[in-house]
Amino acid sequence: MKSVSSGTHEVHFEDLALAALNQFLGQKRYSKVFLLVDKNTKIHCLPIFKKLIDHPIDATIEIKPGEINKTIATCVKVWQELSQQGGDRKSLLINLGGGVVTDLGGFVASTFKRGIDFINIPTSLLAMVDASIGGKTGVDLGALKNQVGVINQPKMVLILPQFLKTLEERQLTSGFAEMLKHGLIADKKYWNELIQGVDFFNAKHIQYSITIKNTIVEQDPTEQSIRKKLNFGHTLGHAIESYFLEKPGLKTLLHGEAIAIGMILEGYLSHELTGLSKLERDEIKKVMLTHFNKISFEPVDIEIILDLLQHDKKNEHGNINFVLLREIGDAAIDIKVPFALFAKAFAYYKES
Amino acid sequence: MKSVSSGTHEVHFEDLALAALNQFLGQKRYSKVFLLVDKNTKIHCLPIFKKLIDHPIDATIEIKPGEINKTIATCVKVWQELSQQGGDRKSLLINLGGGVVTDLGGFVASTFKRGIDFINIPTSLLAMVDASIGGKTGVDLGALKNQVGVINQPKMVLILPQFLKTLEERQLTSGFAEMLKHGLIADKKYWNELIQGVDFFNAKHIQYSITIKNTIVEQDPTEQSIRKKLNFGHTLGHAIESYFLEKPGLKTLLHGEAIAIGMILEGYLSHELTGLSKLERDEIKKVMLTHFNKISFEPVDIEIILDLLQHDKKNEHGNINFVLLREIGDAAIDIKVPFALFAKAFAYYKES
Repeated sequence: MKSVSSGTHEVHFEDLALAALNQFLGQKRYSKVFLLVDKNTKIHCLPIFKKLIDHPIDATIEIKPGEINKTIATCVKVWQELSQQGGDRKSLLINLGGGVVTDLGGFVASTFKRGIDFINIPTSLLAMVDASIGGKTGVDLGALKNQVGVINQPKMVLILPQFLKTLEERQLTSGFAEMLKHGLIADKKYWNELIQGVDFFNAKHIQYSITIKNTIVEQDPTEQSIRKKLNFGHTLGHAIESYFLEKPGLKTLLHGEAIAIGMILEGYLSHELTGLSKLERDEIKKVMLTHFNKISFEPVDIEIILDLLQHDKKNEHGNINFVLLREIGDAAIDIKVPFALFAKAFAYYKES
Repeated sequence: MKSVSSGTHEVHFEDLALAALNQFLGQKRYSKVFLLVDKNTKIHCLPIFKKLIDHPIDATIEIKPGEINKTIATCVKVWQELSQQGGDRKSLLINLGGGVVTDLGGFVASTFKRGIDFINIPTSLLAMVDASIGGKTGVDLGALKNQVGVINQPKMVLILPQFLKTLEERQLTSGFAEMLKHGLIADKKYWNELIQGVDFFNAKHIQYSITIKNTIVEQDPTEQSIRKKLNFGHTLGHAIESYFLEKPGLKTLLHGEAIAIGMILEGYLSHELTGLSKLERDEIKKVMLTHFNKISFEPVDIEIILDLLQHDKKNEHGNINFVLLREIGDAAIDIKVPFALFAKAFAYYKES
């Protein structure tokens, strides 16, 4: 399957990915090769990966899994371990895991001794279709997601769909939310194809999603304009995700689960503000609720979520800018939303 | 006094610096302007600075002073404060302080919401002649200096020698060590001028040191080759500085004080390995000991310092690379030093 070229690096798929990795490690003379995993990928992915790679790994560093550990405290542990294990400026870090491992590992590598090389091998569908392009690295600061990070590119990204077999269904579905988003913001035909059903273990749709994201990011790497389209569903979605992450006793929502709610809510706003038809608004809601369970929000929940929204990093000069749809496949950026509409959007989400 | 252009940004001096700052803030429409100070610059520099700046400061963030607070924990406090005070991607951070404030503030700005603009106003001689060029930002990890950071450029650097009047003599002398280094690695005439005596409150020599550093950095921004020259005295100097920082009950050495010792030791190594004459080797020692008190090292101290050396970030592939002098004004990079020479270098330092 054809590699996707993302300016400074390539995204390779399946067999070609392994050939590219082994060739790269053979050519580059890294002083040490470190591997970053979490508890889950250590158990499920590392044994597979070790059979595929020709080059020795000097040390494997393990972090605790989950968004709740995507923190500066975890970074400190990884920086320390790299240092203790003799990591230097010519070391390489391979991040083998979901978005937490690739986001945090990318940030740790970008800042260790002012920057060492890293390679991302996303093992979750979400990380494959989302984190593999764009160079966003970073960690959360308390409830505020991705507050600390840098934009920096990996040396290469490897997509090996066989790792998806190690995932629970819920994790796969979470990643599917981002693929649906790619259809919604850029390609109605792709959206229609996706809602017919997808075989995740064939990299075809993953590659298509990556190509959509790459085309957008290449036109606007620093997110001044059209790259913002990728935030569809994320402005409210992030606030919802943060809220569930923080609230004691609450089940954590996966990223895609929160974004799916965000897309329904922002679909509602799109109908109100940017001309999305009622039919398409309702189609988005229906598709999302086919894949994602409905969550019940109390008025007090909504109040806190809207508070968190004020802190979202896309919030500039105190205004909250949304990406909304004109129609499925066409998104508008920098749309201001009257505050009163948020409660109505949640009411629309709630109604059956 | 003429500004020094450093590729992406300018270093402005004296009156021109203030005019440039006020014009810049008038033109750019930052959502918020934050000022970072430490306890000392808050007392001594902030009142002066407030009289000079036309633009309002939205919030002043204070950190504890000293290298011991150049940590990730301090970064977390500043990131949190920026976030709580409504900092967004269009905010500006002005770092008003010595190297700790500019290194840490530069790192915090480079990583807050994946990077906001920052301006450095170094208030110590060391920060003026060293940290003002090159874009190195970062913090320490335990005893290991600058283990975490990025290379990123400020929007501008302002040199206001009037802030030097707020410094103790010892701080001034510490900065002078870096100026002497600039002479040693690049310009014998400048070295000879400096050892005749310097008026620090005239920016002339500061500007000359900045120009030397800038010329080197522009030729090799990523420190692949000649930029390494700037590390003369720093390989052993950093290890000595780290050792004094860590050891309980020991008086902390200022950066320049440690580097001055490093330059005597590496002067010795230069005579042994790269042809520095005995005369110049001894001249370096004499000049350094005119300005910096001699420190007594016990064998156990030296052992720990050489251990710390193994962790220095310039140590690649397990080898320790030194910058040594061929003669005053001419430095050689990537010189390997036999381990046995280190004890001899310390013995040379010790002998009167």
